[in-house]
Amino acid sequence: MFENKSRTELNEFGEFGLINFISKNIKTYHASTIKGIGDDAAVIDNGDNYILLSTDMLIESVHFDLGYTPLKHLGYKSVITNLSDIAAMNGTPTHIVVSIAMSNRFSIEAIEELYDGMMVACDVYKIDLVGGDTTSNPKGLAISIAVYGTVAKDKITYRNTVKEGDLLVVTGDLGAPYLGLNILEREKRIFIEQPNFQPELEGNDYIIQRQLKPEARLDMIKLLDDLKIVPSAMIDISDGLASDLFQLASASQVGFTVYEDKLPIDPQTYQRAIDLGIDPTIAVLNGGEDYELMFTIPQSDYETLKKEFDFSVIGHAVAKQEGMHLISKSNIKHKIMAQGWENY
Amino acid sequence: MFENKSRTELNEFGEFGLINFISKNIKTYHASTIKGIGDDAAVIDNGDNYILLSTDMLIESVHFDLGYTPLKHLGYKSVITNLSDIAAMNGTPTHIVVSIAMSNRFSIEAIEELYDGMMVACDVYKIDLVGGDTTSNPKGLAISIAVYGTVAKDKITYRNTVKEGDLLVVTGDLGAPYLGLNILEREKRIFIEQPNFQPELEGNDYIIQRQLKPEARLDMIKLLDDLKIVPSAMIDISDGLASDLFQLASASQVGFTVYEDKLPIDPQTYQRAIDLGIDPTIAVLNGGEDYELMFTIPQSDYETLKKEFDFSVIGHAVAKQEGMHLISKSNIKHKIMAQGWENY
Repeated sequence: MFENKSRTELNEFGEFGLINFISKNIKTYHASTIKGIGDDAAVIDNGDNYILLSTDMLIESVHFDLGYTPLKHLGYKSVITNLSDIAAMNGTPTHIVVSIAMSNRFSIEAIEELYDGMMVACDVYKIDLVGGDTTSNPKGLAISIAVYGTVAKDKITYRNTVKEGDLLVVTGDLGAPYLGLNILEREKRIFIEQPNFQPELEGNDYIIQRQLKPEARLDMIKLLDDLKIVPSAMIDISDGLASDLFQLASASQVGFTVYEDKLPIDPQTYQRAIDLGIDPTIAVLNGGEDYELMFTIPQSDYETLKKEFDFSVIGHAVAKQEGMHLISKSNIKHKIMAQGWENY
Repeated sequence: MFENKSRTELNEFGEFGLINFISKNIKTYHASTIKGIGDDAAVIDNGDNYILLSTDMLIESVHFDLGYTPLKHLGYKSVITNLSDIAAMNGTPTHIVVSIAMSNRFSIEAIEELYDGMMVACDVYKIDLVGGDTTSNPKGLAISIAVYGTVAKDKITYRNTVKEGDLLVVTGDLGAPYLGLNILEREKRIFIEQPNFQPELEGNDYIIQRQLKPEARLDMIKLLDDLKIVPSAMIDISDGLASDLFQLASASQVGFTVYEDKLPIDPQTYQRAIDLGIDPTIAVLNGGEDYELMFTIPQSDYETLKKEFDFSVIGHAVAKQEGMHLISKSNIKHKIMAQGWENY
């Protein structure tokens, strides 16, 4: 069946190539479809407001390693990644459906752990788990969640609406989940070599927590609403700042200038990067899994926004032909390169 | 991590046990949640109408065998199974999001085939594919689709609203997909033993098509609407008539009496069952994957419904304590036993 006359390997095509292929061939039949593939969530006109739909799939040994990921954390995180996609549209998630495929090596108690974690996330974020599918899977664990939310029509934020001169803002701090993963993987390697070894996670609690139990920044959506700021564009930082910045730039046909000294990095993240011989800026640009929000605002909103501790203005949008640059601490201009894979 | 103090094996618990466990522990936070787990789709109050959400996951070697399932057919069928869940609520599906996890053994051309099949289904049923997720999967192919639809508030059909005395109706004919599968698996076994063997599928085109390319009975939803019939309850027959009948009975706290001579079986299905030494009635009761609709109506709707070729009245609802019975062609009363696994 797979012996097609011409065969293009999946990895030479890449995920973006595949997304382009799919997008190119898709027709829509409903006038209610405001936005299909190409943003953090699909947008459906619902009269008074917009409905948002998104989905994410997590595959064992691709997205998580059960060697160091407790199932309860995995359940929690699998919900969070979906909620973050709705947050990125400036929306409020309310309902999820969950599909799980798992092999018999999991006991009922293990599955209970996984669902417990999901239910904790549902409790924290007031999400109704309203359905799904469980099925056996001879080969590992797969979790697929679809999320439903809504947003007021005058508050929705897309990726393709950045304007030249807009300020670029990120929430929270970046790079910690990448370093948390780094530590967990190092401890796992040591454990495999010396099974009696006790993992040394002390002093790394913040960055490990950021990896294993991220949060969806719905508090930031509420804060923006309280401040009466509607970002000109928004995306979540799940693939690394650089990759997601390229998404914003490409969708909006602009460039960006980012200032290294403005990048928000927690001291523990910074120290850990130095200890491991990793450039902290690289961890921020290419790390991924931050689940923070990145958005743009007109300069006129700066006065309102600047008092808030959780927002960092890290740069601004420029003309497309100016490209993507990082101004280093020593004031040298570097080209930013995209990395990572992305959802469609 | 899996060494819990007590360990219950997944297969001794069963899918229904797992669904009960999940349902028992779930809280809902939104007054808009009309129906969560426990029907073909979740129901969310949307003011003027209801929104329906459902999801299904298909796993290679559990739900499909690529040895005899063309990828285009698989793509088509994966959409259909979801649309059928919305049909079972008397609703109209309009949007889907699709997640696919696949290994590098698939070429781009193979993935194109899969999406082509999905897009054909989207074209036939006027569905907008508005998003999703593609990811690598070291171990086989997994497809997860979530579907969004709507239904008028006065037309929604649940599983738990059958009334004693209601007539039991099914659409189309039953059992063919099971026999189609039987033939495909037999041909595969022969092919493995004799690689030069050409599969002999002639004369079985109808039952093989029913297995590889089922349809969602949205035409029946339209017909019911045209006839101004709102079923008292409805479910889709995806797990076999017996299993789905038990779902209806258990949700509605009724029993059912079904008449063997009323079961709609296509002549090709019947003949093929006899040839293979399978009781055609067993193929209908336990086969599964029919994607037909089963519903109940008050007896007062019988005159309107009986003229329609696609509807078969196969029995009626009785008091719960009377139980579940099949009246055979020779007028002997048999207990019906549930079989199969079910979505939650």
